[in-house]
Amino acid sequence: MDIEQIKEVIQKFSDDRDWDKYHSPKNLVMALSGEVGELNEIFQWLTEEESNNLSSDGLQHTKEEVADIAIYLLRICMKLDINLEEVILEKMKKNEEKYPVDKVKGKFKKYTEL
Amino acid sequence: MDIEQIKEVIQKFSDDRDWDKYHSPKNLVMALSGEVGELNEIFQWLTEEESNNLSSDGLQHTKEEVADIAIYLLRICMKLDINLEEVILEKMKKNEEKYPVDKVKGKFKKYTEL
Amino acid sequence: MDIEQIKEVIQKFSDDRDWDKYHSPKNLVMALSGEVGELNEIFQWLTEEESNNLSSDGLQHTKEEVADIAIYLLRICMKLDINLEEVILEKMKKNEEKYPVDKVKGKFKKYTEL
Amino acid sequence: MDIEQIKEVIQKFSDDRDWDKYHSPKNLVMALSGEVGELNEIFQWLTEEESNNLSSDGLQHTKEEVADIAIYLLRICMKLDINLEEVILEKMKKNEEKYPVDKVKGKFKKYTEL
Repeated sequence: MDIEQIKEVIQKFSDDRDWDKYHSPKNLVMALSGEVGELNEIFQWLTEEESNNLSSDGLQHTKEEVADIAIYLLRICMKLDINLEEVILEKMKKNEEKYPVDKVKGKFKKYTEL
Repeated sequence: MDIEQIKEVIQKFSDDRDWDKYHSPKNLVMALSGEVGELNEIFQWLTEEESNNLSSDGLQHTKEEVADIAIYLLRICMKLDINLEEVILEKMKKNEEKYPVDKVKGKFKKYTEL
Repeated sequence: MDIEQIKEVIQKFSDDRDWDKYHSPKNLVMALSGEVGELNEIFQWLTEEESNNLSSDGLQHTKEEVADIAIYLLRICMKLDINLEEVILEKMKKNEEKYPVDKVKGKFKKYTEL
Repeated sequence: MDIEQIKEVIQKFSDDRDWDKYHSPKNLVMALSGEVGELNEIFQWLTEEESNNLSSDGLQHTKEEVADIAIYLLRICMKLDINLEEVILEKMKKNEEKYPVDKVKGKFKKYTEL
């Protein structure tokens, strides 16, 4: 199953419930922010190492939040007619130019240098 | 191009720069939150109607932020071995049970009822 | 009761539970993000007008989330020795210079112009 | 200077620019989320230890973001007639009941237990 088929599932879900009217991009951005908040709650007190080794409950919870975030992100793309795969690849090209390997290798640019 | 190919592009980008060491799931959740903040900044003063009719600058900026969010979300999936398509479909099934059409049609459950 | 007294209440709460060790600024930023996510969930499907006229449940829930956000924000200030009143006033001065009345009156600078 | 005086500075700033019309609670929650995103960007790649020992640039940047967050939080309180000091103290009382010292001392309840 690819992204287009997933979008159809999401569209049908919303159509069946007549929820399209709530789904302005502005509202969807807030809904997305809500889900990202829930993802933060899972990781907030974990060390970085613990975050790499989640309990099975933690991993299950993370999967659900990651799914919620992806669903709202796809919904935003649907409402604004954004081709997600395309914009990802375009952004990766930009990133490659912005962060040349020979300048940044092994050393993350801290915010002060961005 | 499908999600697997996109993941390879993202992995190569990180490998080339030796940035894997920064990409603990905890750190990636924060980076994701940062990008979602930028998406909020685009939409914060727009009316819902305006958010449906972005200027071409606004749409271009939105595409870049949506891409950034997707990239970090995929990175989290890569680090935690999460199959994104699978978890989206599982979550959509859960949502269908949680929000039965005959109970919620045309009327979004406000937070107090959730 | 002023901010200093509130900080003492928060410090005692944390000391009594021996939770200081979890409260690195990094972790506290994530906890703050989680609470802001919950605030988003209250407002996400409301119109702007509805957001000005919350139900009593909605207002009560908002008060609790606003409090949670303020508590974590104060905790960040406590850990980094930031004088909140002082930095607010400094930022307001900066804002006054950045947004001169005669240039921006009645017209919010959209993100493209910032 | 106390919170009431700070609120007056913020109100005058908004009045002078005729920006009140943009400041629906819904919009302000998004603006708050944007600023919290910027705070995340400062801390995302730092270790917890580094987050306790910010560079002077990092600390200055943090002060500004903390101020922005506080300003929008106070603005939300002003629009919804919320007494911030009062709701903080009420929430701290609730927290004290929710997390009894003898049960949680030295051991943060992970999300799975909440």
